[in-house]
Amino acid sequence: MRLLFVGFGTVGQGLAELLLEKKEILTKEFGLTWQTVGILDKKLGNVVAPEGLDLQEALTAAQNQKLLEGVRGERISGEATELISGLEADVLIEVTYTDIKTGEPAVTHIRQALEKGMHVVTTNKGPVALFYEELIDIARANNVHFLFEGTVMSGTPVLNLFRETLIGCEFQEIKGILNGTTNYILTRMEEGLSYEDALKKAQEFGYAEAVPDADVLGWDALAKVTILAKVVFGSRAKPFDFPCEGITSITSSAVVNALSRGKRFKLIGRVWRERNLVKAEVAPEEIDINHPLGSVMGATNALTILTDSLGEITVIGPGAGRRETGYSLLNDLLKIAREQAR
Amino acid sequence: MRLLFVGFGTVGQGLAELLLEKKEILTKEFGLTWQTVGILDKKLGNVVAPEGLDLQEALTAAQNQKLLEGVRGERISGEATELISGLEADVLIEVTYTDIKTGEPAVTHIRQALEKGMHVVTTNKGPVALFYEELIDIARANNVHFLFEGTVMSGTPVLNLFRETLIGCEFQEIKGILNGTTNYILTRMEEGLSYEDALKKAQEFGYAEAVPDADVLGWDALAKVTILAKVVFGSRAKPFDFPCEGITSITSSAVVNALSRGKRFKLIGRVWRERNLVKAEVAPEEIDINHPLGSVMGATNALTILTDSLGEITVIGPGAGRRETGYSLLNDLLKIAREQAR
Repeated sequence: MRLLFVGFGTVGQGLAELLLEKKEILTKEFGLTWQTVGILDKKLGNVVAPEGLDLQEALTAAQNQKLLEGVRGERISGEATELISGLEADVLIEVTYTDIKTGEPAVTHIRQALEKGMHVVTTNKGPVALFYEELIDIARANNVHFLFEGTVMSGTPVLNLFRETLIGCEFQEIKGILNGTTNYILTRMEEGLSYEDALKKAQEFGYAEAVPDADVLGWDALAKVTILAKVVFGSRAKPFDFPCEGITSITSSAVVNALSRGKRFKLIGRVWRERNLVKAEVAPEEIDINHPLGSVMGATNALTILTDSLGEITVIGPGAGRRETGYSLLNDLLKIAREQAR
Repeated sequence: MRLLFVGFGTVGQGLAELLLEKKEILTKEFGLTWQTVGILDKKLGNVVAPEGLDLQEALTAAQNQKLLEGVRGERISGEATELISGLEADVLIEVTYTDIKTGEPAVTHIRQALEKGMHVVTTNKGPVALFYEELIDIARANNVHFLFEGTVMSGTPVLNLFRETLIGCEFQEIKGILNGTTNYILTRMEEGLSYEDALKKAQEFGYAEAVPDADVLGWDALAKVTILAKVVFGSRAKPFDFPCEGITSITSSAVVNALSRGKRFKLIGRVWRERNLVKAEVAPEEIDINHPLGSVMGATNALTILTDSLGEITVIGPGAGRRETGYSLLNDLLKIAREQAR
């Protein structure tokens, strides 16, 4: 399986680590042998090697914040959007930054790769939340996979859970904590910190960006909810078709007051079916502390799934992290390898 | 897919309900068409029909506590252990009672069916906890499936989660609440009820048996832990090879005292690897109320899985129930159908 990385930041490096660590077991247990035929990164530069480059060498260079220049292979210049069509690979690993308003440049990368007959795996929410229908159509027409397990709960494989594990269940409602940053802020506010101070803490620990809008206004959760609405319920809506409220107007006194009544404020993303309509929303909600979602603290994520056959199932797991998000891509790659082995 | 039910109590009926309700979707979405070629039940009697009997008719008879006598088909007498080898079916659904000490008569039913080339799906813990290695060998030799999703967490498909969803992860430790009865008793003891009174309540609500030993002494959780040790960690141990302590010596004052310190007593089953050894145990443990396992109340079950790539993942779901346990068998049947479609 010839891999082409587009983007080689935290998530791409997380996947590279796992690929190297698990190399033997991947071959032995899952029949997955891989080589890296290229890495295209805006900051680190572009290197390609049709016979396979040394991924450990590239990883070390990237982790030392060095350009990929020292890595053996052919150096090429230009933007990924102009290069992908000219390269040969089996799988494009799209892990550039997320733009939830336009999906660019990731959606262009993905479109080109699928049209060229490459499978695509990505953790990039923008393209899926905005262009899922178009991209899945291109993938089908070219008989390749377009997989994005990491877009909803990072490494916690919830899409796989819906598609494979809970097979035969009818899904009635999905609700959960899909943004670790806001959950961290709300957790700190229980200690009496103001919203502003809790946000500062989140920024200090690297949970929140300098411009935290995508998290605190609920957009990140909204993109994830939209992906669930599409994949699980067949909705064709776009993110901002759904109502979305963040946590910026929640005060620490409201948080502490709720706690005294056995409740916790959580930013809840929710998708459900109402007659023939798929509805969704993101909004803060008071959750009972004895409900599984009420026990989800810090940067952890969780989903509660209401099904016809099983009642409520809750899955709690990491919603971010280098290795965790990298794992979601490995999960996608193993799915491709498994299908090919059949 | 010709189905042969052995046992037609709550769980068998739960599956029958789902099969009838979902008949159309099973064919359309999963290519699964089925007919029931026989039901063998100690209490209700035996009826077989090579061309397929009316499952709705049998379900109605069973739900009205009536013998299967009114159901169209051939009446046969005798024990299932003597009948299975003479019958033709594609899948044996083994849902008789569990005997965790001998596994009988279920293990005899399963052995005969596998040897005859039938797939077997079961929710019966005894045969798996005691004879997994032998039964899986017979299944392999006969090129059929032996599936038992419902044995660990009833409808919550955790075995599927280990085998399919978390593919490529290395599992380091699994711990959880695997017995709903004891969790219900401990939950009621938080309200100040004595162990005896809480047990009485559990018996009133049908959560506990008249002789509650298998639950309160931890044996049920132990069987489940043993199955996890075998399936996930490759252990060959038998249930009583592992230490096992139940909840009978926990006092309500200890429960209330723990709660005042932010802890909850839970009966925890645990499996882990220590160097090359697989260890396991069942014992009551104080769990932090802010840990996901600490939020699991009443008859609900939960597992926390420690993995190399994802840290902790927790799954919370039903651990019992007619439809829920029935669903686990449907999940197994769909797995067989899917493999056959390939």
